[in-house]
Amino acid sequence: MDKIFQDVADNVAWLSGIGADPTGGTTRLLYSDYWVEAQQGVKKKMDDAGFTTYFDDIGNLFGRVEGSTYKDETIMSGSHIDTVVNGGKLDGQFGVLAAYLAIKYLKEKHGQPLRNLEVISMAEEEGSRFPYVFWGSKNFFGLANKDEMADVADFEGVKFVDAMHGAGFDFRDETKPLRDDIKAFVEIHIEQGKVLENEGKAVAVVNSIAGQRRYTIVLNGESNHAGTTPMSYRKDTVYAFSKIVTQSIDKAKKIGDPLVLTFGKVEPKPNTVNVVPGETLFTMDCRHTDEAELHSFTAEIEQDMKTICAEMGIDISIDLWMDEAPVPMDPHIVSVLEGVCKKEGLNYRVMHSGAGHDSQIFAPRVPTAMFFVPSIGGISHNPAEDTKTEDLVEGVKALTEALYELAYK
Amino acid sequence: MDKIFQDVADNVAWLSGIGADPTGGTTRLLYSDYWVEAQQGVKKKMDDAGFTTYFDDIGNLFGRVEGSTYKDETIMSGSHIDTVVNGGKLDGQFGVLAAYLAIKYLKEKHGQPLRNLEVISMAEEEGSRFPYVFWGSKNFFGLANKDEMADVADFEGVKFVDAMHGAGFDFRDETKPLRDDIKAFVEIHIEQGKVLENEGKAVAVVNSIAGQRRYTIVLNGESNHAGTTPMSYRKDTVYAFSKIVTQSIDKAKKIGDPLVLTFGKVEPKPNTVNVVPGETLFTMDCRHTDEAELHSFTAEIEQDMKTICAEMGIDISIDLWMDEAPVPMDPHIVSVLEGVCKKEGLNYRVMHSGAGHDSQIFAPRVPTAMFFVPSIGGISHNPAEDTKTEDLVEGVKALTEALYELAYK
Repeated sequence: MDKIFQDVADNVAWLSGIGADPTGGTTRLLYSDYWVEAQQGVKKKMDDAGFTTYFDDIGNLFGRVEGSTYKDETIMSGSHIDTVVNGGKLDGQFGVLAAYLAIKYLKEKHGQPLRNLEVISMAEEEGSRFPYVFWGSKNFFGLANKDEMADVADFEGVKFVDAMHGAGFDFRDETKPLRDDIKAFVEIHIEQGKVLENEGKAVAVVNSIAGQRRYTIVLNGESNHAGTTPMSYRKDTVYAFSKIVTQSIDKAKKIGDPLVLTFGKVEPKPNTVNVVPGETLFTMDCRHTDEAELHSFTAEIEQDMKTICAEMGIDISIDLWMDEAPVPMDPHIVSVLEGVCKKEGLNYRVMHSGAGHDSQIFAPRVPTAMFFVPSIGGISHNPAEDTKTEDLVEGVKALTEALYELAYK
Repeated sequence: MDKIFQDVADNVAWLSGIGADPTGGTTRLLYSDYWVEAQQGVKKKMDDAGFTTYFDDIGNLFGRVEGSTYKDETIMSGSHIDTVVNGGKLDGQFGVLAAYLAIKYLKEKHGQPLRNLEVISMAEEEGSRFPYVFWGSKNFFGLANKDEMADVADFEGVKFVDAMHGAGFDFRDETKPLRDDIKAFVEIHIEQGKVLENEGKAVAVVNSIAGQRRYTIVLNGESNHAGTTPMSYRKDTVYAFSKIVTQSIDKAKKIGDPLVLTFGKVEPKPNTVNVVPGETLFTMDCRHTDEAELHSFTAEIEQDMKTICAEMGIDISIDLWMDEAPVPMDPHIVSVLEGVCKKEGLNYRVMHSGAGHDSQIFAPRVPTAMFFVPSIGGISHNPAEDTKTEDLVEGVKALTEALYELAYK
């Protein structure tokens, strides 16, 4: 236990130091110098551990231990190596390190597995440098479209293609076959919420990734003088917005888990103390693990909004600009992960993920499930992102046992 | 009638042309070249009409017709000559022109009045160039404080004192006595609201200027990930804001005229689609003509806000940064104005003003009342600010008859 604790602490400190920024966070964007340094560093660790390592065309890194018996069956684990700007030390990278450590421990303790064990350190998930998410996992499954990237550039004007070439990589060679040997994918990640912390759990088995719908809604009423316009004359869009939010969130609270509803952005016009706001733009983010529930709830809220606005003589335009279906994890892999938690006597629970992860690209294509470890204060995408090392260790132990179950039996 | 119509149309076109800006509006800021041109232009018109004209120290312009009998009694009318940036053609300046035309007509038709009749074209009311309002009227009553202006500068860095000197004026000589001869002040102004238009009235007699309280309120809850934070864990400040607004405006609507309540500015943080807003700043503007009602309503709303926030575990800070008492108009002058409307068969009503005017500085000190003429669409402080010339003419006629009642009887 002491060795694992030290390994986890040392590895997290080492990897999050590559791209450490002055605020105490880590900024490691796709194809940047720090990104190259991190992938090469992880490669060297895996080389040193006796893994067979290689990059694919676009820069996903792999570290492989060959199986003795089922040579065309691979059990894979990993996550992404990139971070958001001024991000934390765990999001993504802990999943890479945990996979490396787990497979290293298994190899040391049990020797060659029956099935291949493979780490994947994915090139990109966050969409923080270029306006594109899941570049790593989508390329692994041949889902990324080369043509989409032709005109993509980062916030400094560097073209995606030039950044990729600069890091020594290129678009996927589409003549190469896609892999059909992945029999399981297990990702471990921080929760990025407070459920585990509040419940005093060390680990979770994730059985689903919530679907999400995001909207931008614009209300058009009438701008009026705040002093000279009687209440009965007004078409006050902040009042309409407030009625919508109050009613919608009251409904969402009544339904409760796993439904969440957020009105994160509000922009009235002219946004000044003495003018009744004639226009208000706002966003709505709704998530649920059940697609039918997500659709019926958002349809009801859309209708409510229209009714509220119609009663007030206010025009409404509703733009649904993101509509991602929920992604269920594989029931068999989930049961393997749960079995491990029970056997090891871990203080665990089963839960869904409200945030997106690489596993949502894997899950529809190969049997997939996830572990979560707690996030202190639920904080993520922030230099304060942290997890107790004891909990990270519990996560690595659970992952190790799960990979043992999947690759050695 | 045709002559008045032409006079009104010509004078409004002429005066609003001084400082006309490319958007079709008028920008005539205190002590600017256009401001000097406008005051000098009005002075010349009054000189030509045989008025005795003069400026006071700070640049208020006066045009006087001496009375024959009550030489220490003056009936005054006027408004302000300055505009907001990109303002309209009537706010303030119509009151100056109407006073000039009314006294000119009276002099032409009835000769010398019993009491002095005097136009005042006030230097400033809007606070649009320097952060100071009612510079003209406050100086007339010796209420402006010279020391306050020492470090005041406009948005281009020009110091108030230098702008004033540049226009040929200086601070009020405080050794000069203040006037005690004003027996009545009557101001005519556009309504800046839609009440007269909606009711098809040509003119209003104003019996009160509403008091107003302005607040900035900050709610502090907790910023959370919109996907990973169950509804029951949230301290969502946009939800708290929405409950406050819904409940408060529902109450304000139930009470109705003359109470108005506006939440004009809303600024959540971080103001992005996928984060539960941990902080929300907003403003509240509340007005009423009765001080006790204004105080008791805002006290109730303040308590409601605290209750809503306490229930949600959200901190609230409430800053009342403007607290102006209502200003009642003089009942006798109001009755004189109403009597004129009845006698002339005007389509009028009595109403309060929800906006501030020079009359609120006059009313506590000399017997004061106001006329309103309609604003098309309620629009003001905007190039589209307008009133039908027929309605402006009705206003000038009403003012003329009111000044006759006050100065010739």
